[in-house]
Amino acid sequence: MKSSKKAVVLLSGGIDSVTSMFYALNKGFKLNALIFDYGQRHKRELASARKIAGIAGVSYKVVKVNFPWGGSVLLDKKSKLPHGRFMRKTIPSTYVPGRNIIFLSLGISYAEAISADEVFIGVNAVDYSGYPDCRPDFIKAFQKAVDLGIKSVVEGKKIKISVPLINLSKKEIIELGLKLGVPFKDTWSCYSGGANPCNRCDSCLIRRKGFQDAGIKDPLDR
Amino acid sequence: MKSSKKAVVLLSGGIDSVTSMFYALNKGFKLNALIFDYGQRHKRELASARKIAGIAGVSYKVVKVNFPWGGSVLLDKKSKLPHGRFMRKTIPSTYVPGRNIIFLSLGISYAEAISADEVFIGVNAVDYSGYPDCRPDFIKAFQKAVDLGIKSVVEGKKIKISVPLINLSKKEIIELGLKLGVPFKDTWSCYSGGANPCNRCDSCLIRRKGFQDAGIKDPLDR
Repeated sequence: MKSSKKAVVLLSGGIDSVTSMFYALNKGFKLNALIFDYGQRHKRELASARKIAGIAGVSYKVVKVNFPWGGSVLLDKKSKLPHGRFMRKTIPSTYVPGRNIIFLSLGISYAEAISADEVFIGVNAVDYSGYPDCRPDFIKAFQKAVDLGIKSVVEGKKIKISVPLINLSKKEIIELGLKLGVPFKDTWSCYSGGANPCNRCDSCLIRRKGFQDAGIKDPLDR
Repeated sequence: MKSSKKAVVLLSGGIDSVTSMFYALNKGFKLNALIFDYGQRHKRELASARKIAGIAGVSYKVVKVNFPWGGSVLLDKKSKLPHGRFMRKTIPSTYVPGRNIIFLSLGISYAEAISADEVFIGVNAVDYSGYPDCRPDFIKAFQKAVDLGIKSVVEGKKIKISVPLINLSKKEIIELGLKLGVPFKDTWSCYSGGANPCNRCDSCLIRRKGFQDAGIKDPLDR
């Protein structure tokens, strides 16, 4: 059943956020995408996000978020990216302090201002980089804070944080994206900040394994 | 007992945030203040915040936060401020969607990046403007989300959200500030955006009642 509801979707330009956007579109949501320019070394993903929003006919806003305190190799192009050790037990140096807490907060603010019903975020807790703010427990707790911290507590209208990919593997996300018509060739995953994927950072490796497991050729592979 | 811990304090330049800063200083915290330039009509408070941080010898960062979706009369100098109806049951038009959720998220990010132990915020739920994100239930739920969403979930180090004023009336906050040496003459409360307090907005009225109840003259009164 198609919905006539409104939603905000957090869009990075990577496979997960794009697939969650196409998922929401497929459900009939009227979407507004929110793209974050937060000083990421892989600024290249912003062009991907804009392009894909355009392809999908989704209007978007690009919001600058400042992390003047740093705290992540993802915010500093000169520092060394971790290579080839994804799905480790410790939290990698690409973790950005509080990133999803901040991004979700801004998404909630946007959603509240335009009376949207949901905020979509493409987090998943299976083939991920070990970030704590991608886990179901965090999302559940954050939802509770939102329910108590916005007008909903007085006026009754809640905003749901929707995480359609939370329990999917990268393989399953790619299979879902394929069904939904995600233009994988326009997505961007690499952290390194170059013009082409480095094929060595965590994000490249997770992407590669996902396409391999799904038995599909990554259109970014040459 | 004095602490040798480190904390981030969210500083607006108003009585509450300044008193919470002096409270934390008095407890011996090494402080870093975080000041938000978020398009507020009362930009005047930024000068107060900077000045008071200087007086107190607290280093600070001013961070721009963008609310391109608006949703509050506080973000639009042309719109009409509510006058003279504070402590109402409904949420006033000065409510900024998700503001404290966003500010706390940024405070947590800063605290995590510098390995601080606490984040101080001057929210209070007694003589306040009816904002849902100033209530104890919200703070408690947000704390839980933070505990699950930052490195603490893996590495054990938590960041506490400290709300020393949460159960104090404005009168009690002013009495506490007086004891702690808060320079009230340098604080700023008025929402209206003028060079002098308007004495009509909610924030001015709450301030005035606080000083009256405490039996002290507000140094900003002429």
